[in-house]
Amino acid sequence: MHNILIINTGGTFNKNYDPLNGTLFVDTTSKSLENIASKWLCEFEIINIIGKDSLDITTHDRMELLATISHTHHEHIIIVHGTDTMSLTAEYLFDGELEKSIVLTGAMVPYSIDPVEATANLCSAYGYLNALKEEGVYIAMNGVIGNHDKVGKNKKLGKFIHL
Amino acid sequence: MHNILIINTGGTFNKNYDPLNGTLFVDTTSKSLENIASKWLCEFEIINIIGKDSLDITTHDRMELLATISHTHHEHIIIVHGTDTMSLTAEYLFDGELEKSIVLTGAMVPYSIDPVEATANLCSAYGYLNALKEEGVYIAMNGVIGNHDKVGKNKKLGKFIHL
Amino acid sequence: MHNILIINTGGTFNKNYDPLNGTLFVDTTSKSLENIASKWLCEFEIINIIGKDSLDITTHDRMELLATISHTHHEHIIIVHGTDTMSLTAEYLFDGELEKSIVLTGAMVPYSIDPVEATANLCSAYGYLNALKEEGVYIAMNGVIGNHDKVGKNKKLGKFIHL
Amino acid sequence: MHNILIINTGGTFNKNYDPLNGTLFVDTTSKSLENIASKWLCEFEIINIIGKDSLDITTHDRMELLATISHTHHEHIIIVHGTDTMSLTAEYLFDGELEKSIVLTGAMVPYSIDPVEATANLCSAYGYLNALKEEGVYIAMNGVIGNHDKVGKNKKLGKFIHL
Repeated sequence: MHNILIINTGGTFNKNYDPLNGTLFVDTTSKSLENIASKWLCEFEIINIIGKDSLDITTHDRMELLATISHTHHEHIIIVHGTDTMSLTAEYLFDGELEKSIVLTGAMVPYSIDPVEATANLCSAYGYLNALKEEGVYIAMNGVIGNHDKVGKNKKLGKFIHL
Repeated sequence: MHNILIINTGGTFNKNYDPLNGTLFVDTTSKSLENIASKWLCEFEIINIIGKDSLDITTHDRMELLATISHTHHEHIIIVHGTDTMSLTAEYLFDGELEKSIVLTGAMVPYSIDPVEATANLCSAYGYLNALKEEGVYIAMNGVIGNHDKVGKNKKLGKFIHL
Repeated sequence: MHNILIINTGGTFNKNYDPLNGTLFVDTTSKSLENIASKWLCEFEIINIIGKDSLDITTHDRMELLATISHTHHEHIIIVHGTDTMSLTAEYLFDGELEKSIVLTGAMVPYSIDPVEATANLCSAYGYLNALKEEGVYIAMNGVIGNHDKVGKNKKLGKFIHL
Repeated sequence: MHNILIINTGGTFNKNYDPLNGTLFVDTTSKSLENIASKWLCEFEIINIIGKDSLDITTHDRMELLATISHTHHEHIIIVHGTDTMSLTAEYLFDGELEKSIVLTGAMVPYSIDPVEATANLCSAYGYLNALKEEGVYIAMNGVIGNHDKVGKNKKLGKFIHL
């Protein structure tokens, strides 16, 4: 099996409910991700960067993500990312010509609200990456998995589809 | 993506609690499996055969499973199976020289008790199978994924490990 | 047992997550409440009025609530209400001199995020009201139950305490 | 509010799944009960005695329960008990003429499988006991609450009803 680096950038996947003010916030500690990964994945490392809703991710943030991937010795990478700009980030990374195998995933509903969806997406990304031989940038969401330019979010349906 | 056939043979994955007599039983309707698959997988079919705890699976049951796989047009197959004899069934299928890509999975705890584990295992099997190029018989459990003779249940730990 | 009227006014108890825009909204259909009540209560009716976060409840809304209670033949009433102004509404109803037994309850975390807290609060209010002999206005939250002027929300702790 | 003693005697409420042998067992540590009580009740103590499925409770066990209630200074008591012989134990305690307020409760489905039912029953018993003025032995199950001789388990329906 590959030794996988999971880069947690925030997004809905990591949102928690704050009962003190009644709102959802992006938890930057990756507690949700570790809950899943420690039990249902093996041979991985997690790092947290950016920690934002994907609508707030800037070009500067994407540069940081690209640099992180360039500098790590890992060749197999999962990125947990907000859904709204997942395709944009995927394309940015593709243009970076990284010669690594990268799968982006996330969740439409926070792990803290529905642990099943976040788990399903992360584990299908993980399974896919473990059998993957080719370099490239892929997306795995809601059972739809493929090259980043063949999978995208349909905002009306609220789910990812084959393009 | 591959069009996947999911063959549900029963096992802990499908156990439900019966409050009338206080025991767990194998639900042969695949309701648990459909709950996950309808939301978190795509391009699949489900069939139910055998419907047993894996300790009760006989050679005759394994012949039925082998025949089912031989006769289907599907080349990519997930088998949901009890954990105690998963490796035995995998070996039996391997000896059948099927020239298909087969991943066995299941759960240590019923979906009805912990939906997260069953989802994690099924989705990692699904992700793996979608990127898989080689024929063979594989096992995906608890984040440990690989050739069927390299992955097995450690009964003391109550989980699957690399052999 | 008493025949109880449950008046659902909204609040955090009824908030659902909308994956299309990533926000929580007050579901005015009382689906959450019916999920609990249909299974764990008996001899009750539910009506939905107001349907607001309690910070948005106006004097006009409280007049509507008071009128609803005055006009019903029920003498035992549970009010599901947002937590921020629960005490204010309780005092308003107390001043209305209704000669009925009224228990206000709600949740700090939406039923859709944590079904256990909402269930605990509703069921303790329900149990309390069933044994109650006196008229009055009471609050039942987080295991703290008593006369409305003896129980209140501590906003720093994010829970209700004895005053 | 009353200072309540919760006597945990076992039963389905406390059953956990053991993945090593695939069976349910009565957890005698009251972890499930403490999970609920620490968050959703206040002013209570818990003790564990007997620790059995209620079909296995003997007259000797009931004598121990009666003695425990006689000797405690608490006057308000919740008993968590298996459902099959809950009425039998209630009658035994009633015959003991204890001059205390006692509510028996439990669950049809283990807390570990469905935390909502166990929470609903415990919290309705707790609410009821807090408003109760009379001595006596009561049962609170599935929203049906009343004197122990007016509430009983219907084994065909798998729930408690008014007798």
